[in-house]
Amino acid sequence: MKVLLLHNPHKQPAQAMAQRVATLMADKFVQVYIDNGEEPCDDSDLDLIIVLGGDGTIIRAARRYSRLGIPLLGVNMGTIGFLCNIKANQLEENIDRIINSDYLIEERMLLKVSLFRNDEHCGDFVATNEAAIKSSISRMIRFNMLVNNQHLSSFRGDGVIIATPTGSTAYSLSAGGPIIDADLKVLLVTPLASHFLSHRPMVLEASKTIQIEIVFGSQVLMCLDGQNSIDLQAGDRIEIAKSLLGLKMIKLDTIDFWSKINKRMGRIAEE
Amino acid sequence: MKVLLLHNPHKQPAQAMAQRVATLMADKFVQVYIDNGEEPCDDSDLDLIIVLGGDGTIIRAARRYSRLGIPLLGVNMGTIGFLCNIKANQLEENIDRIINSDYLIEERMLLKVSLFRNDEHCGDFVATNEAAIKSSISRMIRFNMLVNNQHLSSFRGDGVIIATPTGSTAYSLSAGGPIIDADLKVLLVTPLASHFLSHRPMVLEASKTIQIEIVFGSQVLMCLDGQNSIDLQAGDRIEIAKSLLGLKMIKLDTIDFWSKINKRMGRIAEE
Amino acid sequence: MKVLLLHNPHKQPAQAMAQRVATLMADKFVQVYIDNGEEPCDDSDLDLIIVLGGDGTIIRAARRYSRLGIPLLGVNMGTIGFLCNIKANQLEENIDRIINSDYLIEERMLLKVSLFRNDEHCGDFVATNEAAIKSSISRMIRFNMLVNNQHLSSFRGDGVIIATPTGSTAYSLSAGGPIIDADLKVLLVTPLASHFLSHRPMVLEASKTIQIEIVFGSQVLMCLDGQNSIDLQAGDRIEIAKSLLGLKMIKLDTIDFWSKINKRMGRIAEE
Amino acid sequence: MKVLLLHNPHKQPAQAMAQRVATLMADKFVQVYIDNGEEPCDDSDLDLIIVLGGDGTIIRAARRYSRLGIPLLGVNMGTIGFLCNIKANQLEENIDRIINSDYLIEERMLLKVSLFRNDEHCGDFVATNEAAIKSSISRMIRFNMLVNNQHLSSFRGDGVIIATPTGSTAYSLSAGGPIIDADLKVLLVTPLASHFLSHRPMVLEASKTIQIEIVFGSQVLMCLDGQNSIDLQAGDRIEIAKSLLGLKMIKLDTIDFWSKINKRMGRIAEE
Repeated sequence: MKVLLLHNPHKQPAQAMAQRVATLMADKFVQVYIDNGEEPCDDSDLDLIIVLGGDGTIIRAARRYSRLGIPLLGVNMGTIGFLCNIKANQLEENIDRIINSDYLIEERMLLKVSLFRNDEHCGDFVATNEAAIKSSISRMIRFNMLVNNQHLSSFRGDGVIIATPTGSTAYSLSAGGPIIDADLKVLLVTPLASHFLSHRPMVLEASKTIQIEIVFGSQVLMCLDGQNSIDLQAGDRIEIAKSLLGLKMIKLDTIDFWSKINKRMGRIAEE
Repeated sequence: MKVLLLHNPHKQPAQAMAQRVATLMADKFVQVYIDNGEEPCDDSDLDLIIVLGGDGTIIRAARRYSRLGIPLLGVNMGTIGFLCNIKANQLEENIDRIINSDYLIEERMLLKVSLFRNDEHCGDFVATNEAAIKSSISRMIRFNMLVNNQHLSSFRGDGVIIATPTGSTAYSLSAGGPIIDADLKVLLVTPLASHFLSHRPMVLEASKTIQIEIVFGSQVLMCLDGQNSIDLQAGDRIEIAKSLLGLKMIKLDTIDFWSKINKRMGRIAEE
Repeated sequence: MKVLLLHNPHKQPAQAMAQRVATLMADKFVQVYIDNGEEPCDDSDLDLIIVLGGDGTIIRAARRYSRLGIPLLGVNMGTIGFLCNIKANQLEENIDRIINSDYLIEERMLLKVSLFRNDEHCGDFVATNEAAIKSSISRMIRFNMLVNNQHLSSFRGDGVIIATPTGSTAYSLSAGGPIIDADLKVLLVTPLASHFLSHRPMVLEASKTIQIEIVFGSQVLMCLDGQNSIDLQAGDRIEIAKSLLGLKMIKLDTIDFWSKINKRMGRIAEE
Repeated sequence: MKVLLLHNPHKQPAQAMAQRVATLMADKFVQVYIDNGEEPCDDSDLDLIIVLGGDGTIIRAARRYSRLGIPLLGVNMGTIGFLCNIKANQLEENIDRIINSDYLIEERMLLKVSLFRNDEHCGDFVATNEAAIKSSISRMIRFNMLVNNQHLSSFRGDGVIIATPTGSTAYSLSAGGPIIDADLKVLLVTPLASHFLSHRPMVLEASKTIQIEIVFGSQVLMCLDGQNSIDLQAGDRIEIAKSLLGLKMIKLDTIDFWSKINKRMGRIAEE
């Protein structure tokens, strides 16, 4: 068995934990590789990925390794995480279950984002939460949005977020989008400060493809999961669709999606 | 072949149209019954329902006849209709296609709403757009919302709307809900003036059941599709789920869902 | 000196506190009358009103006694109160300051609401937080809104809230309205589930008068401060303006408006 | 009499109009200077400014000349303008009224925005609509907001807009802010995609000063009226207050504020 341990290199506790887990697993004849985020890692024949960190670290792992189609376990090293399934102090006691594949898999939908410039395909990107297309300097950008190549709307404003159900509790929520059941496969479209007051968040069936054609905008960019920025220019076309491969999250514990939602929303019984 | 023609009895043009269509169809050896909304109609062995009117009349037809599981054609008699597929002046030219079943069926999800009082099942209701649970006089009502019998949230405020994708462009939209692709099977939960500022619209996978338990409220009511009002009282439990039978809407024309959405949203190219 | 003590008759602690304070004040040669909310009280020559209870009890006091133009002290008997200035346990230690008028006055704006039916003036009402005009049963009501008798907009939807700055943190906030500085004199107009997606909350200078003319609606009502309901009918005209007399709230303590706001909004440092 | 004519140099019709008006006025012994936006103009002893263009051109004029405290007439050269008072074809017929000061003045509030870095005052800016403080690349910025140097809230999200009543119908409206009566003197605070779901637009009395202290953010900027961008960095403090000098807009016509609002909101009688 071959396991990859990935951790945030800037966080000392994650690094120490990685060493401890590596030792524990080696004792059980598991081959362990460590990706500290700094240099690429040989990922051939991997069976499993364990991520020590928060949602940000898992999202980075998804970008790099989701194409392998292998299970990933998120271990929360401190902050609130929507994607992490267990806490650091639960990892060691669960090592045998992990090695013996004694767990459930919860598949999270990912986005495949393709960029076309001058009618040429310039690149594909993966996003776990969302792709946001927005202005960087001046306020107003303009683009056309199409669904399956059919014109849906002309947009003017700060931009738009295309989110997965997982991303519905992240940036999209702050921008006024609804919360989407993690069991659904949909594309969530949430406008950012639309000039047209009647533009509203929309939820599309995930077999559809969204096309965005940039009409105008000095300094427009696409931001993936708040981590990656790609400069766009007038004439660019972005295609956003459900990725064929989802993120296979390991579920050892039964922490409920909705109880996390309640925490995120900061609901307090004010009685 | 046996066809039911249903029209709004208060609208003269719909009534005249019903007579004309009945004559035309009788010439083609179709048995035609007319339901003018005033008295129940024998609906055994029906093959098809044609509704002459707006969305309101179709919703009334769905409440009465959706249990038959037969196709329904909505004919728009004037106002903007999300459920109507053709306009009045297109009906006559399409009569042969209708009789020969030369059309597509678009199945719209319906809600099954069950009321329990003192742990007794008091009735089942059908809704095409939404079930709204809200106060009638004093502002603040309180209820618990559960999903599959698991506590989701405690609510205080004006009430809540549980909508279908079809209903997402009706009352729920006015209350701040997102627009849902008619191809999806989901339950949309849109709060009405929640005391908790962080309550947001939620989109649930439609195999789930929502339970609402009324905790407190003088004069609470449940309003189905803006047409039917049922008085509720503290202790009542309402269960809302996807109905097993959907609404089989006949699609002769290809008027696009999204172009109707654009009209509803009153988007104007302001350039 | 003549003081009125007003308390919520349904809350035992408020009643006991009223007796204790009455005794303490009588010892200091103050004449004390008690209004337990059940029967009207002789209010001639009153110098001061002390309300033992929450915002609801103060609002009832404002409705009954604001016309006297005398200072009012709100004493919080438990729940969070925006209008209360001190807590129950601070009252006894402050009795001398109260008797000696050693305090600041913060004047809160009130609404004067006038109802006209068949062009006859049927009554005037006072509201501290808001007047809400809304449907009780069917969803959609229609009215015209005018400002200083000039047409502003035609409305279709659940209704509208006209709020004071004090009311901006109550019902209006739940319905999507902004928070208004208590130092301002404005009328806040917050739509309830408007059919027109572009209708937005509006803030008007308080010397203006708002007119609402009910066009259509089965079972429309006007609800004042969530306490008083008045049935309306098509053709009714409601005029809403700043009341000439404000509510003279006594300020002994310097609990800050904005720190209360933060509490209401349930902001939590999530770091 | 000395008049400055200011026009958008990129729009030919405005340029031609400027020449024509200059000739007409010279015939009436008025000294006319033309500012084509390209080079500064001697503005000593000016009596009046006439702006030929849209809101953007007036805002530019306000930034440059509001310190003079002289009346400004906005002449609409085509697009919808909230600040323009007359249309191009009404200018010539009104020249005598303009020269004879036969008009009303409507004073629009302006913002004075001061930037402090390392406790040093680095510059003052004028804004007619709004100052927006927002991220340019990564999503999340953090700052503290204070009112009169008292802590109001900690912010995380895309940013914040501080708007005038005039600006309430511009960027702030797109971001969910209320519409503010142009007769009011207030500061409108509208959050942009706040991480805290309970953050809401706020309306403050305009004698107050807002302080914003940037805590964190790679590539934060302040954008004034969508025209001017200033790079900010962690530690910067921005003070925003009502400018002592307002914009003295000439009012020849009585086009109503609220009818413009209706146009902006795109309200359509859908009946």
